This record gives sequence, structure tokens and C-alpha cells, in this order.
Amino acid sequence: MKTLTTQVAIIGAGPSGLLLGQLLHNAGIETLIVERQSADYVQGRIRAGVLEQGMVDLLREAGVHHRMDREGLVHDGFELALNGQLTHIDLKALTGGQSVMIYGQTEVTRDLMAARAEAGAATLYEARNVQPHGLNSDRPWLTFEHQGDTFRVECDYIAGCDGFHGVARQSIPADSLKIFERVYPFGWLGILADTPPVHGELVYAKHPRGFALCSMRSPIRSRYYLQVPVEEPLEEWSDERFWGELKTRLPRELAEQLVTGPSIEKSIAPLRSFVVEPMQYGRLFLLGDAAHIVPPTGAKGLNLAASDVSTLYRILLKVYREGRVDLLQRYSAICLRRVWKAERFSWWMTSMLHSFPEADGFSQRIAESELEYFIHSEAGRRTIAENYVGLPYEPIE
Amino acid sequence: MKTLTTQVAIIGAGPSGLLLGQLLHNAGIETLIVERQSADYVQGRIRAGVLEQGMVDLLREAGVHHRMDREGLVHDGFELALNGQLTHIDLKALTGGQSVMIYGQTEVTRDLMAARAEAGAATLYEARNVQPHGLNSDRPWLTFEHQGDTFRVECDYIAGCDGFHGVARQSIPADSLKIFERVYPFGWLGILADTPPVHGELVYAKHPRGFALCSMRSPIRSRYYLQVPVEEPLEEWSDERFWGELKTRLPRELAEQLVTGPSIEKSIAPLRSFVVEPMQYGRLFLLGDAAHIVPPTGAKGLNLAASDVSTLYRILLKVYREGRVDLLQRYSAICLRRVWKAERFSWWMTSMLHSFPEADGFSQRIAESELEYFIHSEAGRRTIAENYVGLPYEPIE
Repeated sequence: MKTLTTQVAIIGAGPSGLLLGQLLHNAGIETLIVERQSADYVQGRIRAGVLEQGMVDLLREAGVHHRMDREGLVHDGFELALNGQLTHIDLKALTGGQSVMIYGQTEVTRDLMAARAEAGAATLYEARNVQPHGLNSDRPWLTFEHQGDTFRVECDYIAGCDGFHGVARQSIPADSLKIFERVYPFGWLGILADTPPVHGELVYAKHPRGFALCSMRSPIRSRYYLQVPVEEPLEEWSDERFWGELKTRLPRELAEQLVTGPSIEKSIAPLRSFVVEPMQYGRLFLLGDAAHIVPPTGAKGLNLAASDVSTLYRILLKVYREGRVDLLQRYSAICLRRVWKAERFSWWMTSMLHSFPEADGFSQRIAESELEYFIHSEAGRRTIAENYVGLPYEPIE
Repeated sequence: MKTLTTQVAIIGAGPSGLLLGQLLHNAGIETLIVERQSADYVQGRIRAGVLEQGMVDLLREAGVHHRMDREGLVHDGFELALNGQLTHIDLKALTGGQSVMIYGQTEVTRDLMAARAEAGAATLYEARNVQPHGLNSDRPWLTFEHQGDTFRVECDYIAGCDGFHGVARQSIPADSLKIFERVYPFGWLGILADTPPVHGELVYAKHPRGFALCSMRSPIRSRYYLQVPVEEPLEEWSDERFWGELKTRLPRELAEQLVTGPSIEKSIAPLRSFVVEPMQYGRLFLLGDAAHIVPPTGAKGLNLAASDVSTLYRILLKVYREGRVDLLQRYSAICLRRVWKAERFSWWMTSMLHSFPEADGFSQRIAESELEYFIHSEAGRRTIAENYVGLPYEPIE
């Protein structure tokens, strides 16, 4: 058994854990990150790609922004395609100057890993059987196995950044948590291809056959999605079938311009809304997917993790610098205000844009009318825009 | 059998039928109204009391506005009460100067009846077994019995203004209509009392025990509502119990000011959303409740009838003056655009403000978050305000 000590032990080396680690490290607070997977595995995960202004600012605050500023694509708007008609949501005009940054989660993770390596802060990959202990004590600790040794890491606080399936949330007694959940009857089939994106901005398309999304990672790398039944076997979707179905669901002017090519990644993800309350237990704090999942419509998942990081970081700063331990108990309530607003928006975008084959006629007409109203009302478009660019981070006092 | 002829036969002497009749009469187009009930019965119905600007303008256009302008109360806003907190929805500021008029449907009906009597236009009350015929012919007709005689009224067009349970919609073959419906698991228990209203504006209150609404008909006549289970027996609600429950559901500052008194009317109404498509069949046109029902949250029912009246009136004007019979086929599509937007708003207000005891935790949090977001976002408040004062009437061309 090897014993280590740190100030903040972080479970999970995804973007939340790495970003929290970087911010705390820069502030002189010691962190240790333990990650179940290998660094290569973490880097290989293809995830979100739309960063809110708040997350961009936070990456800048962490000093991890140079490549993003060079390679990221600033988008001032996006398109909604309904019944073959494009409606432009002018984010910049509707929000008084805000926009989003297109920069893949994979790239964010890589930049954060590089910064952490450069800073000389410790990340232990391929840690097995990670387990938090003593959460209600003044001195919690983690145990795990790493390269044949058993470790004990003693710390002040534990940050659970280990995702929906991670150990952090599972180590909280079930009767201390309340779970809110909605499972949608469909998934997203996504492909990544080295083709120029069909449109300069993202296109969210509602079609009787189902939702489609045209996204991108760079001017030469496209990311497209199709709504598919939740139990759809991936092997039934050849590249050819994917491109054909995508063309069917897009307005003709876009379908005709679509450049197809071999997929370099193809996967199906289920859609789920999930929130656990509270987001903390004793000295364990849950961040990002460990505490909440949003369906990807609206691109809120990674961004919501970033606002959790910001909240915990600012609280810990005040704890270590000013002794404001009273703020620790407010972490969950502060986070949840913004979490639920993003859950609402993600649920709304999902409900409006997807086909719900089992929905009754009234519900279908209401969804159509809702979109029709919100798109044709300037106030309605503003609600979409201000949520899409990201609502303000909640103050911690 | 007595045979009469007219240009437009109107079934139903409620506010839609009377208003359509008045507008057409003023334009020199002959109408005959037949009504199943007595004039006293029609006048005695206690219904809505919030008029949109569009309906106020239409009453003015019909010349039936003098008493409304004297006695009606212009409201520039209303209050939302959530968790004991009042939020003011400043209609005037949020919509660039629009407001609503508080003037009871009973009063509108009385004014329209007086105007029709003065104009010398015919209304046959207590007409039995009203039946439309020949809807697909060039010369439809109504049959009915009146004071012992059987009548046949030949006409160019028939306007079905006879409400949800009326004969007009029922005389259309079922396979020509598509029905959209949502029945809510609760009703509204309403009382009318000659007491000063508890607040100068309407108050829509969300409370864990259920929705409550403080409304009014005049500075000395109040109208209050409580959400109750759908099968609630009216006799279980004494005035005392009503006032007690209302106080419980209102913010303390209002509960303390509530002036109670004996009810002069008390009734329970179920809440329903209903739309039939299309709103016409041959030469029969459906208006108002004959074609669509909204739950009363948001006060759209009477106002939606008025926009149907405006649409049919303007089409008939062009038909008789310019021979634009092509417009007749567009009646339903023009109406339904605005109908569905009002259905959406009424459904939304109902869903946000009522308790749905059977809703899962996620749905409840989403409803809370939706209200929280819309109330704290200026764009969100604008969407509420612009729907509440009434979206623009659709052009008929």
C-alpha cells in the first residue's frame, strides 16, 4: 500500500477533471487525477464540439486556449430546417454579440492533457478499482490499484468527474440521492468523415422521417447525425445508407451540395435526460455527466460540465484563500439552478425537433405549433439564441 | 313549413354568431340567426372576461363598443404568483404598448344583442331541431322548429357558431374531419362574488395544492378559480371552503387582503384542448367553440372565436363585393394558423401552472424550470406577453 496526499483528488481525466485540475493547479492548489482508462482511450472518444462563450472564457482563464483560438471556428448563428425551409438563428444579433466556438471535445481534452503534463501535475491513468472513502469525515481518501500497487490518496476534497457510469455517484448512499430521468425512444447515429461540411453553420433538421444534424469539427471534417430507433443495430447502417437517409432529411438545396465520403467513426448513442440531487455528499462533489446527462440536441453536455467546474473551482478558491468553508454546502444548489435550465432547453430542443412516432395527434400539432411560433417570433428566437450560446454562470455568493 | 331566405344563416346567438351577424349586417349582407336556447339563457352564461386588443378593435369595427369603452377595465399587465412570490408581466412594456380589456363575455353578448335588436336583424331564439342541409350544394338550407312552426331557411352560406356541443360540427361527415384532443385531469371551480377584487390585475398562482386565478368583472365584482379534481362534486365546496382554499394558494400578502362574500354563481368546468380540421365543409363554416376548445388558462377561447369571425367576415365581404369565391376554400387554413398558436399557448400556460399529480419527477422539475426560465428572461417574458395580448390576426390573402 502506497500512501499519497493531495488537496483535491479528482476522479476522471475527461475534460471536466482536467479543466478543474488545471484551474486549481494554476491557483496553487494541489490536485491528483486518477482515471480508469488509458490516456489514448480518453483522447479517442468522439464527443461534443460546440463550446459556449462561458466555457471558452473558462479555458482562457485556465490558459488552455492558444490552439482553440487558432483552429476553432467561431459561429455567429445556426440553421433550423423545417419542412425543407431553412430559418437562420442569428445568435450574435439576438443575444447582443454572443457566439459559440466549434472545437471538438477531443481537442479540448488533448490541450488540457498537454497543459497538465507541462505543469508537471500528476494524472494516474489505468487506475483500477477506484473507491472514495470517508466522505463524511474531515479527511476523505481514495483507494485504487495502479501498475500492480495499491494506493491510498488522502485529501481535503474529492471531485467526481468520472461520468455517468463512474464510481463517484455510485459511492453515495442511494437514499441520499433523488434521481430525475427521462429516456427517449430513439438514439443518434453519428458519423465522422473527412469531407467539407455541407454548410458553414450547424443545421438542425426536423423531418417526418426523423431529426438530422449537420455539424463539423473543422473546415475539412464533418460530423453528421440521424435520429434512429433506440435499439437500432449499427451494422445495418452502411455509409451509403447513412448518406442516402441524410439527403432525404435535408432541404433539397443542402442535399444537393452534400459531399459524402468514407466514415472514420460511426456509432449510436441513446438519448437521455438525467439529474441527481443533490450534486454533493459530504466532501465528495459531482461534476458534469457524473451528476447530469442531457440529450445532445442543443450541445449542452460539455458546457454544463464546464459551469460545474467553474462553480467548484471558485468555491474552493474561497475555501483555501479565505476560509469560506460555508460555501461548500451551497455547491449543489448553485449548480442545479443552471443545470435545470440547460436540461429544460435540451429537453425542449429534443422534443421539438425529433419524431415521436407514438405521440398522439394533439402532441404532434403542439410540437409543430411551438416551433412555428418560436421561429416566427423575434422574442421566441431570442429565447432559443440565449439558451444556445449559454445562460450566464450562476454567482457563487 | 315556412320558407325564409337570407344570405348568411348563422347557427348560435353567442358572441361569435352575434358579432359575425353585426359585422355582416353593417356591410349590407343579410343574416338570420337561429339559437336553440332562450335569450335569457344565453345572457345568463358566465364565461370569459379578458378581451385581446384584436377583439376590442373588432367590436369597435362593429360599432358595439360604447359601453365597453365606458365600463371595461384596461389592464396593462398581470401577475404570476410562484412559490408565494409575485412576478409582474408588464404587457404594455413587453409588447410595445399593447394591453387587454377586462369586460365580461356576458356584457359583450348583451351589447351585441342590443345592437342587433336596434338594427332590426332577425334572431330566432328557442329554435328546436336545427339542422343544416345541402352543404355541398350551391344553395344550402337550415330546417328547424320555432313556436310551433317548421321553418326552412335558404341561404348562400351557413356559419356554425353553436359551440362545442352544437349541431354544426356534428352535421359534417365524421370521415371528413380530423380531431385533435387533450383532456386534462382537473377542472376549474369558479365563483362570482360582489366583492372588490383582491388585486388590481389578474393573478395566476401556481401552488403545490393546485392552480388558482384571481380575476374580476368590474371594480366590485370578482371572479376566482381553483384547480380541482375533474370529478369533484360541486356540493362539496361551500363558500367557506372555497375562500379558505383560495387563501392557502395565494401569496400571504394577497391572502391577507382578500375580501370574501357570498358567491352569486359557482360552477365547475372541465379543461380540454380540442381542434377539428378542417374548420369547414362545403358551404358550412365552423367558428369558435364549434371548431376548437382551449383550456381557460390564458383567456383565449372568446378571443379565438373573434379572430375566426374576423376571418370569415373579411372573406365574405370579398366574396359578395368582389366575387372572390376562391377565398372561401382558404377559410380553414387561415384560421388554423392562429388557432394552433393559441392552442399552444393555452396548453403551455395550463401545463406550467397546474399541478399534475401523476407527473413523474422529471416532468415536474421541467415545468418548474420552464417557468423559472421564462419569468427571469426578458425574451421569455416577451413570449408570454405577446401571446397574452394576442398574436396578430392572419391576413386573408
